[in-house]
Order: sequence, then C-alpha cells, then structure tokens
Amino acid sequence: MKIVFKKPEGLASSSETPKALPFFREISHEGTAALSRYLESATGQQFPILTNTRLEPAFFQGNIENFIGMSQIPTGVIGPLQVHGTSANGKYHIPLATTEGALVASYHRGSRACLLAGGITSICLQQGVQRSPVFKFENIKDLSLFVSWFLAEKENFQEIIKRTSRFAKLTDTRIQIEGNHLTISFEYFTADAAGQNMVTICTEAICQFIIASCPIKPSHWFIEGNSSGDKKASAAAFNHVRGKKVTAEITLPANILSEVLKTSAERMDRYWRTSTMGVIQSGAIGAQGHYANGLAALFLATGQDVACVAEAATGITRMELNKDGSLYAAVTLPNLIVGTIGGGTKLPTQRECLEMMDCCGEGNSIKYAEIAAALVLAGELSIAAALSEGQFTQAHQKFGRKKSL
Amino acid sequence: MKIVFKKPEGLASSSETPKALPFFREISHEGTAALSRYLESATGQQFPILTNTRLEPAFFQGNIENFIGMSQIPTGVIGPLQVHGTSANGKYHIPLATTEGALVASYHRGSRACLLAGGITSICLQQGVQRSPVFKFENIKDLSLFVSWFLAEKENFQEIIKRTSRFAKLTDTRIQIEGNHLTISFEYFTADAAGQNMVTICTEAICQFIIASCPIKPSHWFIEGNSSGDKKASAAAFNHVRGKKVTAEITLPANILSEVLKTSAERMDRYWRTSTMGVIQSGAIGAQGHYANGLAALFLATGQDVACVAEAATGITRMELNKDGSLYAAVTLPNLIVGTIGGGTKLPTQRECLEMMDCCGEGNSIKYAEIAAALVLAGELSIAAALSEGQFTQAHQKFGRKKSL
Amino acid sequence: MKIVFKKPEGLASSSETPKALPFFREISHEGTAALSRYLESATGQQFPILTNTRLEPAFFQGNIENFIGMSQIPTGVIGPLQVHGTSANGKYHIPLATTEGALVASYHRGSRACLLAGGITSICLQQGVQRSPVFKFENIKDLSLFVSWFLAEKENFQEIIKRTSRFAKLTDTRIQIEGNHLTISFEYFTADAAGQNMVTICTEAICQFIIASCPIKPSHWFIEGNSSGDKKASAAAFNHVRGKKVTAEITLPANILSEVLKTSAERMDRYWRTSTMGVIQSGAIGAQGHYANGLAALFLATGQDVACVAEAATGITRMELNKDGSLYAAVTLPNLIVGTIGGGTKLPTQRECLEMMDCCGEGNSIKYAEIAAALVLAGELSIAAALSEGQFTQAHQKFGRKKSL
Amino acid sequence: MKIVFKKPEGLASSSETPKALPFFREISHEGTAALSRYLESATGQQFPILTNTRLEPAFFQGNIENFIGMSQIPTGVIGPLQVHGTSANGKYHIPLATTEGALVASYHRGSRACLLAGGITSICLQQGVQRSPVFKFENIKDLSLFVSWFLAEKENFQEIIKRTSRFAKLTDTRIQIEGNHLTISFEYFTADAAGQNMVTICTEAICQFIIASCPIKPSHWFIEGNSSGDKKASAAAFNHVRGKKVTAEITLPANILSEVLKTSAERMDRYWRTSTMGVIQSGAIGAQGHYANGLAALFLATGQDVACVAEAATGITRMELNKDGSLYAAVTLPNLIVGTIGGGTKLPTQRECLEMMDCCGEGNSIKYAEIAAALVLAGELSIAAALSEGQFTQAHQKFGRKKSL
Repeated sequence: MKIVFKKPEGLASSSETPKALPFFREISHEGTAALSRYLESATGQQFPILTNTRLEPAFFQGNIENFIGMSQIPTGVIGPLQVHGTSANGKYHIPLATTEGALVASYHRGSRACLLAGGITSICLQQGVQRSPVFKFENIKDLSLFVSWFLAEKENFQEIIKRTSRFAKLTDTRIQIEGNHLTISFEYFTADAAGQNMVTICTEAICQFIIASCPIKPSHWFIEGNSSGDKKASAAAFNHVRGKKVTAEITLPANILSEVLKTSAERMDRYWRTSTMGVIQSGAIGAQGHYANGLAALFLATGQDVACVAEAATGITRMELNKDGSLYAAVTLPNLIVGTIGGGTKLPTQRECLEMMDCCGEGNSIKYAEIAAALVLAGELSIAAALSEGQFTQAHQKFGRKKSL
Repeated sequence: MKIVFKKPEGLASSSETPKALPFFREISHEGTAALSRYLESATGQQFPILTNTRLEPAFFQGNIENFIGMSQIPTGVIGPLQVHGTSANGKYHIPLATTEGALVASYHRGSRACLLAGGITSICLQQGVQRSPVFKFENIKDLSLFVSWFLAEKENFQEIIKRTSRFAKLTDTRIQIEGNHLTISFEYFTADAAGQNMVTICTEAICQFIIASCPIKPSHWFIEGNSSGDKKASAAAFNHVRGKKVTAEITLPANILSEVLKTSAERMDRYWRTSTMGVIQSGAIGAQGHYANGLAALFLATGQDVACVAEAATGITRMELNKDGSLYAAVTLPNLIVGTIGGGTKLPTQRECLEMMDCCGEGNSIKYAEIAAALVLAGELSIAAALSEGQFTQAHQKFGRKKSL
Repeated sequence: MKIVFKKPEGLASSSETPKALPFFREISHEGTAALSRYLESATGQQFPILTNTRLEPAFFQGNIENFIGMSQIPTGVIGPLQVHGTSANGKYHIPLATTEGALVASYHRGSRACLLAGGITSICLQQGVQRSPVFKFENIKDLSLFVSWFLAEKENFQEIIKRTSRFAKLTDTRIQIEGNHLTISFEYFTADAAGQNMVTICTEAICQFIIASCPIKPSHWFIEGNSSGDKKASAAAFNHVRGKKVTAEITLPANILSEVLKTSAERMDRYWRTSTMGVIQSGAIGAQGHYANGLAALFLATGQDVACVAEAATGITRMELNKDGSLYAAVTLPNLIVGTIGGGTKLPTQRECLEMMDCCGEGNSIKYAEIAAALVLAGELSIAAALSEGQFTQAHQKFGRKKSL
Repeated sequence: MKIVFKKPEGLASSSETPKALPFFREISHEGTAALSRYLESATGQQFPILTNTRLEPAFFQGNIENFIGMSQIPTGVIGPLQVHGTSANGKYHIPLATTEGALVASYHRGSRACLLAGGITSICLQQGVQRSPVFKFENIKDLSLFVSWFLAEKENFQEIIKRTSRFAKLTDTRIQIEGNHLTISFEYFTADAAGQNMVTICTEAICQFIIASCPIKPSHWFIEGNSSGDKKASAAAFNHVRGKKVTAEITLPANILSEVLKTSAERMDRYWRTSTMGVIQSGAIGAQGHYANGLAALFLATGQDVACVAEAATGITRMELNKDGSLYAAVTLPNLIVGTIGGGTKLPTQRECLEMMDCCGEGNSIKYAEIAAALVLAGELSIAAALSEGQFTQAHQKFGRKKSL
C-alpha cells in the first residue's frame, strides 16, 4: 500500500466570478453552435469530430475486431465544475454521453451548486493496479517452501519489470494462502494508463521467471485467480486501492441549497440517513446513490473502459447537517480505474472529450480521477436533493420520454 | 415473486449446418463491406447509419440535454450465437461496441464453440422492476397502524396503475420495517421497457393516493429509499429479481474444447474452482468472471442504460467436468435490466443494432434477455479457456495496442 | 413470507415506579444472596441450581455425547428491562453468562436508562425457519418439467407435515434456479422451538415423497444446499426472515442521556454516523455495534444454540438526534433463531434462567425474541454512549482484569 | 501486514498407531469415569472440577458483575485429533461444550477419519489484532496536515506501547480516509492473549499522545470507528488478519471415506460444489458450512469470548476429488480471535479444558489456533459427508431429542 497523499498546498479557493455555461434542454443546431462557441472561448479548443465530422475507421485498429461501424451516443456538456485537488485545479467542462434523459441536466445542476459554493475539494489518495496469479501445490508444505523462495527473490522483480514496460513500477506484493492455493497480488504504478493489460504482461513476465527459477514447482498456476476485483464490485476495494482512490468534499451553504437545489441541509441529511439504511439492507457494497450514472456517461465520452463501471461505481457518500444550516457532503471512491493514455483515449471523439476536460495524454490521470470524483459528488448532491424534496419523479417526467408509459 | 417459468417445449436442437460469420481482425473498408453483405443476407436487413450515415441530432430529444455532439464507439459483430429459449430461438448476430481490443474476438470465439456444440439453452425465469419508497413515522406504533391500513387497501392500487400507464402491472408488494422506517417495495411488470421511469411514475401515483387517504400520516417519506438495488450490485438480487432473471447452460464436448477453445474440460473445471475461491475472497457479490465486458458492449450498442451494468453484471458462473470429458457450464443473472422499447432503443445506430439481433420494439425484451445471458455464457467460456491455458496474456498482446507499455 | 405483524394495541406505557435491581461489581456471597432475595421477590421464583446445586448428568441425554462433565460459566443478572411488545409486556430480569468483564455492567446501565425512559417498544414482525434442499438435473429442460410438477403438487405437502410433526406448519416455498440446479426453500412455522431439526425432518419427508412420486428424477439431491443461512451471517436475512424478525425502539430524553449514559443525543448521533461509515467500509453485513455480546451471553444462559450467534448477530442500529435534544434509537434483527422449548431449554440452569425471564416453555418464543431485541438495543445504547464520550477504555480498565497487560 | 509463516520443517507424519478414545452415546457415570481414566492416561492430567467439584465464586472476579451463579453446559470430549502445525504437533483431545445433540458425535467422527488418514496439517499464517480510532476534521485539508504529522511521528509510538503493556507490540498502522474522516488502524502482536482490551488500552495511550502533541486538532475523535471487524463477520478479514489466520488441509483416501464417513470423494466433491453455489447466493461472507458449531463449543469450553464466534466463523472450505479417488479438503480461517491467557482462560473448568488440549497459559495461542482450525476441518468433513449421503436427517434423529416434533 503506497500512499500518494500530498500536502494540498496548492488548494486555493477561486475568486473570479464563474461564467455560466449555456444550458439547452431542447436539441437544436443553434444550441449546439452556441455551446461550441462557449467551449471554444472557455477552453481555447475546437471539437470538430464530436460535433461534425465523419470518422475514418482506421483510427480504431487495436480497439476492435470484426468492425462493422460506429455506435453513436448523444453527448451533452455540463459545467464548469470547479475542482481543488492535487492535480486538478480549475473549472472544467465535462462531456457526458448518455441516452438517459435528465441525467445531464441533473449533473449540471449539481455542478452549478458546487461552483457557487466555491468548488469541490477532490484528492487522489492512492493509486495502484493489481494482477493476482494463483499457484496450486501438492500441499501446504510445498507451498510454504515456494513462499520462502519467493520472499527471498522478490527484490529482483523490478529488473524484469524494467525490461517489460517503460511505465510500470511494481509497488507492492501481497500473498494470500488458502490451503494449497497461493495467490500473489502484484500491485503496480501504471503511470497514466488504466493499466490492466500492462499489469498482465508484467506479471506474466515475473511468473515465467518464477516458474523457470524456483526449485519448487506448482502443480499448476493461472495468471489471474479472479481475486483482483477486475470488473466487479468487491468489498476488498475499501482495504486497498484499485486504480485511483479518491475522496471529494464540499460544504454547501443554506442559500445555495434552497436556491439551486430547492432543498435544505436538514432534508438532505434526513434523506441521506434513510437511504443509507436502505442501501445497507439491500446487501450492496459501500453506500452510495448513483455513481454509475455519472461514471458511465463520463467513461463513455472519454474512452475509458465502460465495463469498469461495474467496479468503479463502488464507494461511500456521506452528508451531514452543520449547525449553521449548511451541508457537508463527501464521496469516496476506492476503485476508480481510469487512464488518459492507452485504451480508447486516442479515439477521435474520445480524444476531443478528454481535451474538453484538459485531461488528454500523459500527466493527466490523477487530474482526471479528481475531476471524476468531483463529478460524482455533484451528481449525488443533485439526485439526493431531488429525492429529499419529492422532485425526483417530476424531473424524470420533464426531461425523459414519456411515450413508453 | 411471480415465476414466469414456461415449459420449454419449443426448445429444439438445431440441425442445419451453421454458416460462418466472416471474421476480420484488421479494420478495412473491404472487411466492413463483407460483413455488411453477410449480415444483409443473414438477417435480411441493412444497417446504413451504423456503417455510414451522419445523424440528425433531433433524433435524440428526450435522451440528452445540452447536446454538443455524438460520441462514437467502434462496433464489431460476432456470431451467430445460437440460443434455445422461451422467446429466443435461433441464431443471432450480436453487435458489441467497445474500445477494448480482444473483447470482440474473445466473445466471437466463445459463441463459435457454443454454435458447434448445438447452441445455448437460455431461459428467462422471472421478471419485475421495483420502486421502493420509504415512510418514516413517529414510532413503531404509528407505523403499525399505517401498515394495517395499507394491507387492507392494496388491492385498490391496480386501478391507479391502470390510469397511469398502458403497460405497467403491479405484481407484488413487500414491506420491510426497520424501527420507525417502513419500506414498501412495489414490483411491476413493465412489458418490454426497462421500466425504471415507469415504475417511478406509477409508484408516485400510488404514494400520492396513500398520503392523501391514510388517516395515519408519516412524518416524511421518499419515493426511493435506496433499497431497490438501482444501479449498484446488491446481494438482494439473488433473493428476488430485478429486471429479468435468466439462466443459460451448455455442454461442450471434449473435441470442441480442444479444437476451438484450446483447452480441456478438466482444465476448465480446475480454473473455475480456483477462480471461484478467488472471487469469494475478494468480497464480491455472486461469483463470475467478466460479465461486465459483454454486457457493457451489448448495452452500449443497443441503447440500454449502460449505468445498469453496475447491477446487471451480478451473477453466478458454474462449470463442471463430466465423466465423458465434456464440460457443463451455466451462468445465472438475477438482475438484467433491459428493454427493447423506451430509453435509448429508438436512437439510430442503437435501433439498427437491435434489428441486427432481431430484438427491436415490442415483444422482444425476454428474447433480448435470453440472448444477453447466452452472450455472457459464451464470454465466460472463452475467457476461462484462455486463463485455464495461459493464453490470456498472449491474446491481449495479439489484439490490443501495445504502445502504452 | 408471512407477516405476523399485530396492531400493538396492548402497548401501554408503564406508570409504576421502577424498583432498582441491586448492582454488585465485586463478587461476594452477600451480594449473590441479596440478588437471590431480590429476584425471588420480583419474580416469585427461586433459582437453586443456578446459585447452588450440583447437576445430575442424566438430565443432558440427547444434548451431548461422550459426556465428560459440565463447563461452568459465571452468570450475572441485569434489569429490570422494560419491554412493550406484542407478547413481551413488562419488566424483565435478564441472566447473562459471560467471562468478559464489563459486559454485564454495560448492559445493566443500558437497561437502566431505558427503564427510566419508560421502556423499549419491541415488536416481532415475522417468523419462519427454512430448510433448502437442492436438486440437480441433467439440464434446464428436465429441471423445468420437475418445477411444473412441483408447483402443481405443493398443496399436498401440508398432509405430509401433519403426519411428521405436531408443531410445524409449512408457510411458504420459494424456488431458486441456477443452471441445472434447483433450490427449493421450505419455510415453516415451528411454534416455540428454534426448529432447525424440526424443519430438517419435515423437509426430508417431503423430499422423500417428491423423489418417489415425481416422474422426472434428479441426478442427485441434498437435503440442504447451504443457502438457508444456517449458522452464518448472510445478506439474504434482510430480504426474508430466519427465526424471528424483531425491531425495537426507544426515545431517550436529554436528562437520562446525561445522567445515566453520561453523553448527549448530539454526541450519540455523531458517533452513530461515524461508526456506520466505519462498519460499511469493513464489508460487514448490516450495520451494528456489538449485538454478539448480548446475544451470546443471553443464549448461553438460556439454553439457545450459541453457534446461532453467528447468524443472529446481524442487523441494523439507527440513532437520530431529535430537535428537543432527545435521541431516537432502534435496532432491527432479521435473523433471531431462538426457542423456548427443545434444544437446551430444559437443562437445569438454562431452565431456571428462562424462568427468571418468565419465558420458559410453550407460548413464550415471541416474548423471548422481543426481550432479546430490547436487550440488544440497551447494549447498543450503552456501548455507543461509552464510545461517544471516550469512556470505553476506562470502562474496560475498571471492570476487566488488567493482569494480562 | 506481517507474515509469520514459518518453514514447517517440524511437520512429521505420525507413525504410532492411534489409540482410540472411547465413545459413549448415552450418558452414564460409568462412561464418564471411563473417559476420565482414558484422558488421565493420555494426557497425564486430571479434570476434577469439570467432572465433579463445586466452584468458588471468588474465582470469577473481573469476568462478571452482579454475579448470581453458574450456567452449566454439558461437555463432551472428542479425539484424538492429530495435528501437524508450526506449534501444534501431536494428538489432542478436544472438549466441546454444547447442548446440540449429534454435534460431539459428528466432530468425533470427523477427527477419527483424519486420525486414520495421518492427521491434519494446520498452519498459523499471520497474527494481529486491531483497534481503529477515527478522527474527524473540519475538512480534507486539515486532515492531510494531520496525516503528514502522523506519518512523521509514528516511529515513536513503540515507546508508548512499551510503557503501557508488557506484551503488546505495534506491528502495523494503516490509514483510511473518507472525506474529512481519518481512520487509523493500529495492529498489534498481543502474545498469547486474545488481546481486545490490550489493544484498546495501548491505542488510547497513543491517541492521548497524538491529541496532546499534534498541532492540528480534530473536531472530535473516537477510540473505535467500528471498522476493525470486532464481533461481526466482515469481508475485510480476507484482506488482512484479525487474531490468527490459519489454514488446515488433509487428503482422505477412498477407503477411509467409505469406511468412516460412509461416502466417496466424488460425492463429497459434488456436495461441496453445490453447497458453495448455495452459500454464495445467500450473500454470506466466505463460503463454509458450519464453522460456528465447532468454534462455539470449543470457545465455550476453553474460556474464549464466545461472542467472537460471530467473526471467527468466517472462512473458506474447499474440497477436491483426486484422480486416485481420494479427497483433498482445506479450511482457511482469517479471523480466529483466541487466547490462552487472559479473558476466561483461568476460570476453573475452562482452565482444565485448556489443559486437556495441552494449551494452557503462555506460549500456546498459536498451537490453540492450529488445533481449532483442524477441529473445524474435521467438522466440515463430517457434516459434508452426512449431507453428501443423505445421512444428515438420520443423524439428527438418532442423537437429538425428538420430543419437540
């Protein structure tokens, strides 16, 4: 476990007046054009493919097989979302790709409330990605001899990693024993890549060395024993990290709660308490509202592995009424598997969306994670506000299609 | 709990020789054109928007706000996937939208093995979607009076539902009490819609009636107490249903295991056992490998709510070595939130992808769920085969981008 | 699921002044004699074996094999614990057998605070015990034919039950399908017995009938498929009931909080919130503090199956600050496996301890469950008070042995 | 995380012929006398209080308040249970206190099968007990300054521990951050004590130092934030250790399976697979059968904290059919909170029962843990054998009381 916690000295509260992103509930060429102009002035960039151009399939080599065409997902933009973090520090416009009416509007409302309150503090606490091979022996005695050999050798693995990857660093190994089964969890720093392939290839190299060198041979072994939490929610996430571990907080004053979110701290606190009891009784992992909504829409727009929503949407939301009528709220996501290089991040619209967030390419994955957690917090506030006040049904009636009723 | 289990009399094993879908690892105009021709002949349909045409944004009204453009996700096609179900009965071509190299190839390999083995039996066992309002009272005594009133009145709610929705039917109510908190879980049949909005609006109507009519008033209430499992994995799913509950099985003979999947039943069984122990130790819900991969790619292509992957990717995979060297394998998904009307299903590429699967529009949601479970089973078999034989790393090296190493 | 919720009309708040049970921190013959005299006057009974007499081993026939002697556990008494329930209605003295110093003192303090506040409302909501045989078939098709037969036949099982047991009633059957595995959960009313053996024998009888009668034969079957939650904490408990499901509540005014529990509602609420976040992060089931302490000590003294603490100590504790400075607190236990006949309830000291609680023999199991939940609530209040105020360490230093430090 | 894994060089397979412990299903003075004589010859000790004598209440000072008398639990003896471990190495007689008929007989049968197969390998892998205080700050910024101070100071805590306890050693600290909440998990080596009080007092001393010395003050803090897993099953156990982490294994040849356990490896393997799927669907933690039975009976007889069964009965049972018709079986318990000093271990019958196991006093807690895990394995084998073969119901009918049916 490596703590990357930094003293957040750079955290400054913003003083300039937030400029409003225009908001269009209806779709129109005029609306889209106005948003494009606003984003160009706010970010200094253009988004021609997202807004306009046909794609060249050759772009996707390595991301797809048996290519038949492009699935197209309508994408909205919200913000600015103001974030004070260790890497993220500023006001960000967030692209959200979704087909769920009301989702973009809800996150926009949440981020507007947070902007007016001075922004969200969002800190990446740890990072690391695991691959967890499992080795099976005749009996515990053989296993224990193998472990002794392993513990003596493990310092030499960094050399193997260096030969295998420019980016990966082995940061921890943990062993878990279940009868004659030995699981070794190799944890890596994967720079700005989400890193699942990188850790597979590095771990394969280490395992090939182990199998060749250790005098005790396992009866068989597998590169992944399904204990690393890959693409599924797991309680283990809270004990370690998987991807990035991020926590984000804000205090919303009473007037913003009433004016923007149409609720009060007391009602939010009450709803939080009740819904936390509800989610516990459902046997979920952690306790949150709808992280999956924001994360899926963000992952989709920005070239992340959308299947990772199954694990990333794990966490804890806490709200608390303060004596002055303000509300403290925080989200903690132990398991945010994200990257700003590799995977789908170079694809045309995805790259533009990362650029819109100022998160494209190397050096940006922690920033991205801090913005993602802030987005999740904004969303939790907005949906909890709607539920705390009985606006939830109406919001879905107003924004969603009603034809299917 | 309403069991929709039907005697699967219609399940017939296919006898006609499967025609092979061409498979192109590299992207090229020729490859895409060949796939288009094949699909046209196999399905009798064309897919012009998916493969070629610019979209008209006005299509998306009700699915998005603050529209800025279209996120584009490369989409591959696999199959045919042969399914014997209560509604699905045939050979289906499955569109998968993903940016993860090797995913399409892996699911294609799994579906090919299953096709050669005569197809997958996949049965939708139950369906239902819940909304779970929570009512808070001064004390348990008031709560109990309210419950007495409710139990006497609940037959009258069908009338309210009829006035509110053409499709929804209230199929069950369950009450849960925690101190002075009462949760009532309303479960609905939502026809072919995923139905989350439908059940919200119906439950709001019932609750408004209750609040107006019941002499005992709660101190406050919320339309959703966060216990329905919405967009998060929950252990409760195994006790009831959420969306569709589907189970799918196949027996793969030894020769298909060795020729197509390059493994044996013994090695598959061994890997399954080991990985099941691994996933249990991670504190996950259920025990599976990578349902999220296939479900996210399928949901994305076909206009489902991708955030629902967080809950739908819950389930149990079981594999078993038979004495004749064949392998029995099954997947069970208690929580498949899907629809073939409403949501994103009418969007242009999404609609074409549903048509490709012969699942567009009314009357197709059970078929879609049975195909989805079969897809998940094909994927579990392919990935377990790769892991059981040490091919996993190589597959990702072969198909994926290696630039980020 | 059968709701036994009754309108708690009989719930009356007590008006007579509570008489104090003497409390002796040190052990002495004088103290024990004083307690005996008090209990005799309060309950009209004597407890000669508990306090004095040698046991006759022949008593234990059927409870033990290879008998070597008696393990002796020191037992204290607390109370009176005032309970307003559907069956429990009065002031009860509770025997607690434990070797953990401070435990008896802590529960006594909690029950004293609750007595001064007018007593605890504790309601048994549901009851039922399951046995869950599992049947395996060649394939889902055979399984579905078996299910069809089963659903048509199941009305006839009551006859089988009647011939097998005087007490048991089959109250529900639930089926769960996982591939070619069918689990049928038979739920019974077991009168005042904990009932695990009773439900085994009844279910065996039903299964023997099924196997003999159904034309579709399973390849094999087991009387219990390990899904009934027997002797392990399980998330499923919240969805159904196992044993008795009980909820208990109290509102403690500010002066009792400060005078008896040396804390305030604000600090209790704060500790509850923090500790709930803590327990969620640990991946526990439900969210509570130390139910196991009180339940183990009570089960031990009163002849319950102590191994059932593993499942019974599952539940939810909720606390809430009221505007007037009072504290609302509730516990909910979905899974209280208890009985007042059968098992160890007739053993000499155990029977006396049941008599001390006025819970011996037929007609008392719901009363016992309501008292047990009230005890748990008193304990949660006392320990949370100690932790909220930093008294926890001191309490253990004061009451416990310090020699081992 | 400190691995105390030792090379098990001392593990030798026993060659002397096992002498049979007599087994008496019925209770009689003759039977008890015969057992006493056998145990005296096997262990060189006598057990006068367990078998015969009145207790002196003054013994219990520090273990109980408001003492009223002794609860008496019938106790049987099983064995010898042969264990090959790092500390346990020999044949042990195990006292089990229970009121559940058939329990002693079942564990005796399991230990007999294991004895005939050459004994159980049982290895303590790790040890450590945690106390996890939580500190709350105004915001994450203050929290991060506090963490920086803490990380720089933490080397100095060993001094504080030395002044506070003769036995405790601080072996690890882990920090967990959730918004403005900081949990620090202090993990200790507690020698042969279970250690919950010891770690409380040591952590209190450290926290008092921190609060006095750190320039950043928390708004409030609690000595335990309910995340340490104390007295409740938690998924976190698999990631770390709590108490002792032990794994035990055996291979049972076909003839012992058929002669002693009346089953075969194939049927055991089949039952294991089915029951593992069952327990997963129930939403339990880990996957086991009935650890709570053996642990509760052992804890009770030997002065352990019986409430800890709630957490200790967590683990994984694995069984596997070997090609030669033998069965591999293993249990892993991550969370065995046990001690051989302190707590109830000095009480009269408890001390005798520890002596019967050769586990009384200092230097014996690892031995005790290894024996306990071996006992659990013997029990899992016996109950799985009964269930695999349909003997389960009959065993309970034969040994249990049937009067309550």
